[in-house]
Amino acid sequence: MEFQLDHATEILRRTPATLNSLLRQLPEEWIVSNEGRDTWSPFDVLGHLIHGEETDWIPRARLILEYGESRPFAAFDRYAMFEKSRGKSLGDLLDRFEQLRVESLQALEEMNLRPEMLAKRGLHPELGVVTLSQLLSTWVVHDLSHTGQITRVMAKQYREAVGVWQAYLPVLEK
Amino acid sequence: MEFQLDHATEILRRTPATLNSLLRQLPEEWIVSNEGRDTWSPFDVLGHLIHGEETDWIPRARLILEYGESRPFAAFDRYAMFEKSRGKSLGDLLDRFEQLRVESLQALEEMNLRPEMLAKRGLHPELGVVTLSQLLSTWVVHDLSHTGQITRVMAKQYREAVGVWQAYLPVLEK
Repeated sequence: MEFQLDHATEILRRTPATLNSLLRQLPEEWIVSNEGRDTWSPFDVLGHLIHGEETDWIPRARLILEYGESRPFAAFDRYAMFEKSRGKSLGDLLDRFEQLRVESLQALEEMNLRPEMLAKRGLHPELGVVTLSQLLSTWVVHDLSHTGQITRVMAKQYREAVGVWQAYLPVLEK
Repeated sequence: MEFQLDHATEILRRTPATLNSLLRQLPEEWIVSNEGRDTWSPFDVLGHLIHGEETDWIPRARLILEYGESRPFAAFDRYAMFEKSRGKSLGDLLDRFEQLRVESLQALEEMNLRPEMLAKRGLHPELGVVTLSQLLSTWVVHDLSHTGQITRVMAKQYREAVGVWQAYLPVLEK
């Protein structure tokens, strides 16, 4: 599928509601359990998504539009949420993510991106030259991927509970 | 995590709303695209979940409670939805799934399952002896797994669009 701005924003605007339906007011055990040492719980993933809104997607899009390849993106801290989410509730994080996403999509709309602007180039500190449409596509895939991660982490909590059905549930082996 | 009936139903009752947030009124392309030959689109997955409500979870739970191991479950047709969903819209399927899930959870409540009943045994046509709590755990994992599948299938539509970011997005290789 080719990147289309309106198709992409249709996904991006849905993610807070999806995560809200999936997680809000779930018993704590579903929220804080992970896949083992050095893996993320649904709570951790939500903090990571928040950090992305604050420091990654829109800031990088602005950098592309304003500076092109002349100024590389700041590196993204993939572990910042362990500190930043401390002491917060899942409800706090869901609220915060929803608010930030509304602001991000508003900022995106205000960029008033015409098709030719989507080909503008920026500089990723590790990957090299990237385009604005690649950045926005990655934002969409990142949302979907982490939503999927949350469902996988939760599913695995019942790895033993399903008994012999384990054989039919490849998600438990991932 | 040990199976707990109230923890399990917390997940089961959320799935229709989660899929609704994720999918309703999305552009058709997101809904009908799959991962290639002999794979399922989000539309197909939803039909599969509907078929599960109609023929799998509650009917099997009833069989366990009424007949124990003396009558094996009917085999579950994993491809029935290709015929049954024909001509329906995604909105139709979301509505139908939501309604069926409400009915399933009501039926589950009416079973008034006491803890000792969860150990009751039934006979799976291929896997052999299973317990009621394993069946209900599998229902939960099945929901989460197919929700994750939908996000993965959608993510993959942007496999090319993300450009060099592919290297950071393992979901695209799954």
